[in-house]
Amino acid sequence: MLAFDVGGTDTKSALVDADGRVLGLRRTPTPLDGERTAEAVVGRVAELAAELRDAHPDVRPIAAGLLVPGIVDAERGVGVYASNLGWRDAPIRDLAEQATGLPVAFHHDVTAASWAEHRLGAARAYDDVVVLVIGTGIAGSLILDGRPHLGGGYAGEIGHSPVADEPRCPCGARGCLEAIGSAGAIVRRFAERTGEAVDGAREVLARAEAGDADARTVWEAALDALAFAVAQLAATVAPEAIVIGGGLSRAGDALFVPLAERVDARLSFHRRPLLVPAQLGGDAGLLGAAIIARESVGA
Amino acid sequence: MLAFDVGGTDTKSALVDADGRVLGLRRTPTPLDGERTAEAVVGRVAELAAELRDAHPDVRPIAAGLLVPGIVDAERGVGVYASNLGWRDAPIRDLAEQATGLPVAFHHDVTAASWAEHRLGAARAYDDVVVLVIGTGIAGSLILDGRPHLGGGYAGEIGHSPVADEPRCPCGARGCLEAIGSAGAIVRRFAERTGEAVDGAREVLARAEAGDADARTVWEAALDALAFAVAQLAATVAPEAIVIGGGLSRAGDALFVPLAERVDARLSFHRRPLLVPAQLGGDAGLLGAAIIARESVGA
Repeated sequence: MLAFDVGGTDTKSALVDADGRVLGLRRTPTPLDGERTAEAVVGRVAELAAELRDAHPDVRPIAAGLLVPGIVDAERGVGVYASNLGWRDAPIRDLAEQATGLPVAFHHDVTAASWAEHRLGAARAYDDVVVLVIGTGIAGSLILDGRPHLGGGYAGEIGHSPVADEPRCPCGARGCLEAIGSAGAIVRRFAERTGEAVDGAREVLARAEAGDADARTVWEAALDALAFAVAQLAATVAPEAIVIGGGLSRAGDALFVPLAERVDARLSFHRRPLLVPAQLGGDAGLLGAAIIARESVGA
Repeated sequence: MLAFDVGGTDTKSALVDADGRVLGLRRTPTPLDGERTAEAVVGRVAELAAELRDAHPDVRPIAAGLLVPGIVDAERGVGVYASNLGWRDAPIRDLAEQATGLPVAFHHDVTAASWAEHRLGAARAYDDVVVLVIGTGIAGSLILDGRPHLGGGYAGEIGHSPVADEPRCPCGARGCLEAIGSAGAIVRRFAERTGEAVDGAREVLARAEAGDADARTVWEAALDALAFAVAQLAATVAPEAIVIGGGLSRAGDALFVPLAERVDARLSFHRRPLLVPAQLGGDAGLLGAAIIARESVGA
């Protein structure tokens, strides 16, 4: 299978063979071309596909998996909206099938990465599980009763679920989890309080641990916001586990232990979700792309 | 089908014939007997079953549907927990099958009522729909991809999803929707502010409309809390519609219009759920009991 994971900055591509080995993994810049970005992305995907086939003549891909961020209508193969790629209702699957000459399975990046965690990684043991990716932003995906729940492409937007009445989020709504609990928000809010730029959320955490009051305030607000969102999920969809990936999850126990304490304090009779670190890392998307490509052609 | 809907105060019972006609509908007090309440309830159900069969000798029920509130493990037939009925892990389905001599389909009351709304009522047009029952408390149920999502019996507890950090809820958690947005909370919070007892939430609404500032504060806080919870659902499970029933829904436009405005103001790119009044009224549970009984025996 050919696998492509198109992000706002980079596109990852690889060939995944029948044994699940990842060959020729590359990261190339995603071409941005204003209103023609969808066409530019598909053109790049076709080039990468040709290069992968040339480099591995012994592997014959029979389908491709193509992932994009934003709101995705997987059924119709349409990129509905992606704030960082600028398209609206772009028929990306059809364009990619024409350009590559292969059947293309088209899906949302985090949904496919979550599906890989469900098939191969940390979510394997659970029928009802939420995957939460906490990085610059916060994305999520729901697997309920063993199947991805898509909600027409709109489900799992946990980063834009309200946890408070403020601050205003760039998405237009108020009090979104992402505006308080993401790694990006932690860095931004620390800078707003102190006028100091830091390298990343992990540096804010290190300063909080060293006793810096501003860092502590920002970090604890992030934990509280994340615990609030987990409690919402426990009450409404009641997952057995929440698998947490993304840059912030690499904080390990410094994140998982106080978060679990706060979740515990927020809940009463609810089913308490286990908080579990993601296992597949940054290539979960590519593996997910290969899995959905394989499933789409029944191979 | 025999249909029983056991509530904290009353038990409703009826015979539902093959054409869906409801015969012999009765409401009798639910027997409370401390730690033996499960046995007492099953005993009453068996008596009611015998009476219904005697009164309608021409209808031969081949199964019964039995609904209870609280946390329900439908698969194992167990009432896990019900605050107002006091049982813990009671094997109610098995007891009821022994007592009635019929196969018994056992389920959660609001889940079954929601299923009836999905099969026969206001939720019929939607694959992804949340049913919200706003009365003394707030209960809910999720139908996702055309199937009830149960989460081991813990899903749909939207009344105990956080919308704020306070007040303390009787369930033990903080800032639960039910503690602000239910009809019960509206009455209680108005009384706390004014020292005045009112008949019900509709009276608080009437006073708010007449310009009473306390009534207005309480009513608007309830609307804001409900809108917050709807926005959470839109971001996480993205239902096409939210069907609203229960006592408060009878306020009609006075509830639905300002709630829809507030939901609209809270959302940005999200799928905006239609807010739809429930259609089946208080007997949705009995109809749901008959439907699940029929489905359980493949009739």
